[in-house]
Amino acid sequence: MAVRRVTRPADRTEAIMRAALELAGEVGYARLSIEAVAARAGVGKHTVYRRWPSKGVLFLDSILTVNEPRLDYRDTGDIVADLREQMVAVVDLVGRPPWGPLYRAVLGEAQHSPEVAAALNERFVRAQAEKTTARLRAARDQGQLSPGFDLDLASELLVGPLYFRLLISEEPLTHNYIDRVLEALFAGMGPKA
Amino acid sequence: MAVRRVTRPADRTEAIMRAALELAGEVGYARLSIEAVAARAGVGKHTVYRRWPSKGVLFLDSILTVNEPRLDYRDTGDIVADLREQMVAVVDLVGRPPWGPLYRAVLGEAQHSPEVAAALNERFVRAQAEKTTARLRAARDQGQLSPGFDLDLASELLVGPLYFRLLISEEPLTHNYIDRVLEALFAGMGPKA
Repeated sequence: MAVRRVTRPADRTEAIMRAALELAGEVGYARLSIEAVAARAGVGKHTVYRRWPSKGVLFLDSILTVNEPRLDYRDTGDIVADLREQMVAVVDLVGRPPWGPLYRAVLGEAQHSPEVAAALNERFVRAQAEKTTARLRAARDQGQLSPGFDLDLASELLVGPLYFRLLISEEPLTHNYIDRVLEALFAGMGPKA
Repeated sequence: MAVRRVTRPADRTEAIMRAALELAGEVGYARLSIEAVAARAGVGKHTVYRRWPSKGVLFLDSILTVNEPRLDYRDTGDIVADLREQMVAVVDLVGRPPWGPLYRAVLGEAQHSPEVAAALNERFVRAQAEKTTARLRAARDQGQLSPGFDLDLASELLVGPLYFRLLISEEPLTHNYIDRVLEALFAGMGPKA
């Protein structure tokens, strides 16, 4: 495709992120390079490096900038439905093809790159956890959660099983799996008094 | 340390696994090599490769062979106590120094090595999940679990939050965290009827 020439900083930022996603989709994460992204975006590679120190951070930023609004929670008054909707959006974005294998590669890189691990948490994981906790707090105030439930832990219980399938067992992240996780977490494992 | 000369196959296998753990502890996972393990064990590198196709598989096999009995469940009749004891043993083995960072490196490798991912599941994850499900089934038969609980999902709910801390948030895997996870999973998130 044609190389784009862009000059305004905001256009340049957008062109770089768009080029990163296009190239990642074409060649995969392992063969993605900052140099190729810069060439595709029509900027010098130092322009890219000034803002994104590594391709992992650039990829995360690009995919989230484009998609983040989809990952917000609605408040319809039904906590299970709202959690489900958001978890489906997350899984459809980063738990399945086309982006799932690339997100998985970034998470692999985070295991030996403190820079990528930090960006992952700052840019995505902590922000999502805060949104989850806020939505759950509203639900608790409306009597839709057990009053004594450990809210600080809830977001880890909700996403832990998803990451387990993505990174460890490689079993499919279906919508039905999300339903089962929600049902089990809400019901609890212990005998009912 | 002195190079060992071993000739019996069983002795040789043990010497290789011992050498793998020694060297991994000394140089870390990234700098571990099959060649160095072979030299330390006093065998040719083809002897190692015949049994272990990669250093990830060798490391997993070595650490589990030495420690697996510790990762079994007791049945004391108290399901929460037995789960806690086993989860503490797992976390103390592969969730903290000295072996935690190395296990994390192997999991990072599993994101791009189908061979390591397969060994991880065959050698460790599936076997542990089966033990967990068996112990939970006994507890359910004794009335210690909700009769309708989704037992096939339970092991993922239990370990998912641990992997989330190890691989994503990098928050500490304390024994107190295990207590909180167990309490929350047994109580459930939903309001009590």
